[in-house]
Amino acid sequence: MKEVVIKNISIGDELLIGQVVNTNAAWLGEHLSDAGFHLDSALTIGDSEQSILDALNACMDADLVLVTGGLGPTADDITKPTVCKFFDTELAFCQEAYDNIVALFNRRGFQMSERNRGQAMLPKACQYIPNTYGTASCMWLEKQGTVFAFMPGVPFEMKGIFIEELLPRIKQRFQALPYEKRVVMTTGIGESFLADKIKDWEEALPDYLSLAYLPQYGMVRLRLSGRHEDAYMLHATLDEQVGKLSLLIPEYIFAMQDQTIERTVFDLLMERGKTFASAESCTGGNIAHVVTLIPGSSEVFKGTAVTYATPMKTKVLGVPAATIEQYGVVSQQVVEGMAKGVRDLMEADFGVATTGVAGPGGGSEENPVGTVWIGVASARGVVSKRFNFGKDRENVINRATVTAYEMLRQQILISQAS
Amino acid sequence: MKEVVIKNISIGDELLIGQVVNTNAAWLGEHLSDAGFHLDSALTIGDSEQSILDALNACMDADLVLVTGGLGPTADDITKPTVCKFFDTELAFCQEAYDNIVALFNRRGFQMSERNRGQAMLPKACQYIPNTYGTASCMWLEKQGTVFAFMPGVPFEMKGIFIEELLPRIKQRFQALPYEKRVVMTTGIGESFLADKIKDWEEALPDYLSLAYLPQYGMVRLRLSGRHEDAYMLHATLDEQVGKLSLLIPEYIFAMQDQTIERTVFDLLMERGKTFASAESCTGGNIAHVVTLIPGSSEVFKGTAVTYATPMKTKVLGVPAATIEQYGVVSQQVVEGMAKGVRDLMEADFGVATTGVAGPGGGSEENPVGTVWIGVASARGVVSKRFNFGKDRENVINRATVTAYEMLRQQILISQAS
Repeated sequence: MKEVVIKNISIGDELLIGQVVNTNAAWLGEHLSDAGFHLDSALTIGDSEQSILDALNACMDADLVLVTGGLGPTADDITKPTVCKFFDTELAFCQEAYDNIVALFNRRGFQMSERNRGQAMLPKACQYIPNTYGTASCMWLEKQGTVFAFMPGVPFEMKGIFIEELLPRIKQRFQALPYEKRVVMTTGIGESFLADKIKDWEEALPDYLSLAYLPQYGMVRLRLSGRHEDAYMLHATLDEQVGKLSLLIPEYIFAMQDQTIERTVFDLLMERGKTFASAESCTGGNIAHVVTLIPGSSEVFKGTAVTYATPMKTKVLGVPAATIEQYGVVSQQVVEGMAKGVRDLMEADFGVATTGVAGPGGGSEENPVGTVWIGVASARGVVSKRFNFGKDRENVINRATVTAYEMLRQQILISQAS
Repeated sequence: MKEVVIKNISIGDELLIGQVVNTNAAWLGEHLSDAGFHLDSALTIGDSEQSILDALNACMDADLVLVTGGLGPTADDITKPTVCKFFDTELAFCQEAYDNIVALFNRRGFQMSERNRGQAMLPKACQYIPNTYGTASCMWLEKQGTVFAFMPGVPFEMKGIFIEELLPRIKQRFQALPYEKRVVMTTGIGESFLADKIKDWEEALPDYLSLAYLPQYGMVRLRLSGRHEDAYMLHATLDEQVGKLSLLIPEYIFAMQDQTIERTVFDLLMERGKTFASAESCTGGNIAHVVTLIPGSSEVFKGTAVTYATPMKTKVLGVPAATIEQYGVVSQQVVEGMAKGVRDLMEADFGVATTGVAGPGGGSEENPVGTVWIGVASARGVVSKRFNFGKDRENVINRATVTAYEMLRQQILISQAS
């Protein structure tokens, strides 16, 4: 089977002067891989007619070209007239696109401007592809056997359109080699130690499978993927290899699929009909933030008290002022008091708490920057542990959040067993 | 003065399957801009000889090509032999490169492997450029007037080499125009309405200045930049134009430099010695999360109550159950009660509150998905407003967060005036 050649063009001066990092290319690469396709190259160019024409011409050897960006309502967007030049067509009013823009403005309760009306002008030769996320239209055109799909560059619009509208069309038009991947989520072990532990298994993998280590804030995602004409054999081999892997490192695995640890905890609590709440000092609301990104999280999440100011730990959570005075804010006694306090306050089954020094200031000899106490309270009592998550503030916050969820997960599992 | 044409090629399969986001291109673009150069395009390709040869050939129209990646010690790196093919040369032992690798291993106290020794083999025709950050050598080669500089892809190595070694060589070889940019941050107005409001000003800009609209979750960053041989005039013109702009749309500008709205609020509160706290329902702790990413935020931020479960709005924040019963959770009465409640609870100067429907579930005819009430309480009383932020959950949360900070900013400014 011939490989489908897919190229990506990202249009935008902001990408070339470093104002915005192009994350669309990587996202498209990942989602094309998941569908069994392969992104051949990704080119970023500026908002100029000549650059766009050169780039489109340079992609005529591809089967499919995914173009992102350059479709906003403002004057710096010159993509559509250039597209008309390249495809030898002209702009025409598209009723379907217009209706979509009107509907969007109605939903948001805004007045439409002349400029937005202009966004319904599309190249005559194009097939219009609906965008329910914004006013920029998505377009599908062909030239000498090469398909060009144009999408807006705003990531959440591009992602929505690609998944809902474009990918089904691409799958219908092009045939992909069967592809499959498995993701195993680990936490509590660094990348190089993990690599040492699974070295023999990795070296014995069949050559059509490949393993990637994707480290991320206190976690390592292991992705095992492969493409093979025999889809059944591919599937069975992945089952077998993932099974072997899970027996090698059971204590570090929190999920056998690509999901965050807060999602894993959410699922566990949903299954059991249990709830949790958090009391956050150094994590500053991030434990709440990540779980509330999950639709339906109100079923398992009662609420949070971010007690950044020390007296609030007493007033809101009921940690005795004397305890804080005696042991300090960053201490086992305080984190346990916070965990128990928020569990009571929010009437939840589990209470999780953090207190620590996110930095860059505030460190001491006893509690250097990066020190974090994490506690989890349940009907069984309270457990707590001290960590050091390094010097970078954002990293400390994120690693503490992941670790708090891992400790919560352990307590949920134990509480079921008891 | 003729524009120097600079292109970037990033080599690496990991960039095309979405395993790693290419941040090098944006970083190079930014640093080239700051040095008065302009990045013309950025191409990402995989680790294959043919892709590399095609990309190098496609860049022969440039003056300078910056190539990153493909120089690591592992077996999948085929860049150097391909470079030899392209430049019609062969690999030879480079003593200087070897000494550099030995010194690096000695510093780190590691044993050198045969693989690392191989990294001292470089194309005969190249000029060796030292890398004190890692074992991969940096190379400078020329072909028919086009300069090619090869750097490793690991970001911290690439950045160090570029700043210390390459940029001085580039400045010596090519002449750049003086460059300057200004960023103005706006909120509360969509891109197209903003464009209409400043249309006349934009059209009257001198042609060596360009304006970019960079929308992002409820904000639009306006970037005015230009290059001109007369650096003094460029500076003065930017001053003048930014001044004019700020008089055109004062009500939408929250900062005259490139910074987030939470940073702006943080600075205002620091100046005034005031504090705030948040009561969050639909934003789920995100208002707290973004401000606590700022080092020193404990000076102005007292804490947060995320009251995801409805009864907690009564128990923690003191919103009367009868009010919730009568008006519903997503209502003016409830958001105002939450804002006042958290201001009292956390003993803060300002209380900011959100309640809404982030979706995808939970919408009703009266309060469709995306409906958010935001309230701000201060010594002057409480203000509140209703919004609709669309249907994407993450987008709703982020836009509500930005808008809450903007309403808080307005109240801080008013409270000073009174």
